Amino acid sequence: MKHRLRIVLVHPPHESEASLRAAALQAGLQEAGYELVASLPADIRLPAQVAQLQPDMLIVDAESDARDVLEHIVVATRDERRPIVMFTEDDNQSSMEAAMEAGVSAYIVAGLQPERIQPVLKVALARFRQEQKLLDELEDTRHKLAERKIIDRAKGLLMNRHGMTEDQAYQRLRSMAMNKNLKLAEIAQRILDVEDLLG
Amino acid sequence: MKHRLRIVLVHPPHESEASLRAAALQAGLQEAGYELVASLPADIRLPAQVAQLQPDMLIVDAESDARDVLEHIVVATRDERRPIVMFTEDDNQSSMEAAMEAGVSAYIVAGLQPERIQPVLKVALARFRQEQKLLDELEDTRHKLAERKIIDRAKGLLMNRHGMTEDQAYQRLRSMAMNKNLKLAEIAQRILDVEDLLG
Repeated sequence: MKHRLRIVLVHPPHESEASLRAAALQAGLQEAGYELVASLPADIRLPAQVAQLQPDMLIVDAESDARDVLEHIVVATRDERRPIVMFTEDDNQSSMEAAMEAGVSAYIVAGLQPERIQPVLKVALARFRQEQKLLDELEDTRHKLAERKIIDRAKGLLMNRHGMTEDQAYQRLRSMAMNKNLKLAEIAQRILDVEDLLG
Repeated sequence: MKHRLRIVLVHPPHESEASLRAAALQAGLQEAGYELVASLPADIRLPAQVAQLQPDMLIVDAESDARDVLEHIVVATRDERRPIVMFTEDDNQSSMEAAMEAGVSAYIVAGLQPERIQPVLKVALARFRQEQKLLDELEDTRHKLAERKIIDRAKGLLMNRHGMTEDQAYQRLRSMAMNKNLKLAEIAQRILDVEDLLG
């Protein structure tokens, strides 16, 4: 591995980070050549700490109560998604579903063997990238749909108010966008905003 | 578990299904209370066999060469997605990425311990459902965008050819759709088809 993966460990606030379990995890990470930048409790300060440290991955070590930890993880990765790996003993269906919902890339129940950590992390990274691609595509498609709606509404407004044909309305939008150096959807939104203001 | 999960095991054609590894996997599945409906080699007959057996999940046991098996798995789940769990010793980045691309819900490297099988399968199911939701949403958004484009083109055609205003064109489409008991996009597509035919 050329670039050492920078990892932040997260543990439940009430669980000691000096536990045997945590020690095994840390040893496994170091052995596999990862850089452990911090070990943090899952509390209200976590989002700011993650934003400051900018780790490549979060590893959650939650013996039980996976859901308690997830709450803070969700806030910490809401604006900037990161791969999340979760080692836990919590095999409740609802905890698993909450973890998937929260974007956890690997949810490992009772599988904390130091020698397995590296493949687990590699799979998690591949999964994260794949899901990111899917989410980007969804975002992009939603955006196109929203833009199209706005452009249509602006076109309709030009046609109704100014007696233009559809083609004239479209050409008008295009030339306005070019003159202002804006995207078609942006100029359309401005036209709708002005309309809203003027009633 | 109320409903016993029906599982099809898939192995590489050149690997013996009587291996120690495969035996451990089968024992683990039975112990966890799953129903093993078949153990099949990954070859050209797999898609038809899967379509016939309709299992709830595919488990791939590929000691190495995960990619060879994936090819057939992709074909077998292309039309009807199913949760796929992969146990392998293949930790190549490219094999992992191919597996994610193919929709593998859990890719487990060197982790075939019978007592861990149940949580792995539960996580895989939760992941499959989550990804399915995302894919459904993407499909739905793409569909809306495509419909909107078709409706817009049909509206433009009515406006240009028949001198209608946008509102008139829209009302015409709506009443045609209601009369024919079709969706707006369907009637729009018919109008475009006729136009194509007539030039």
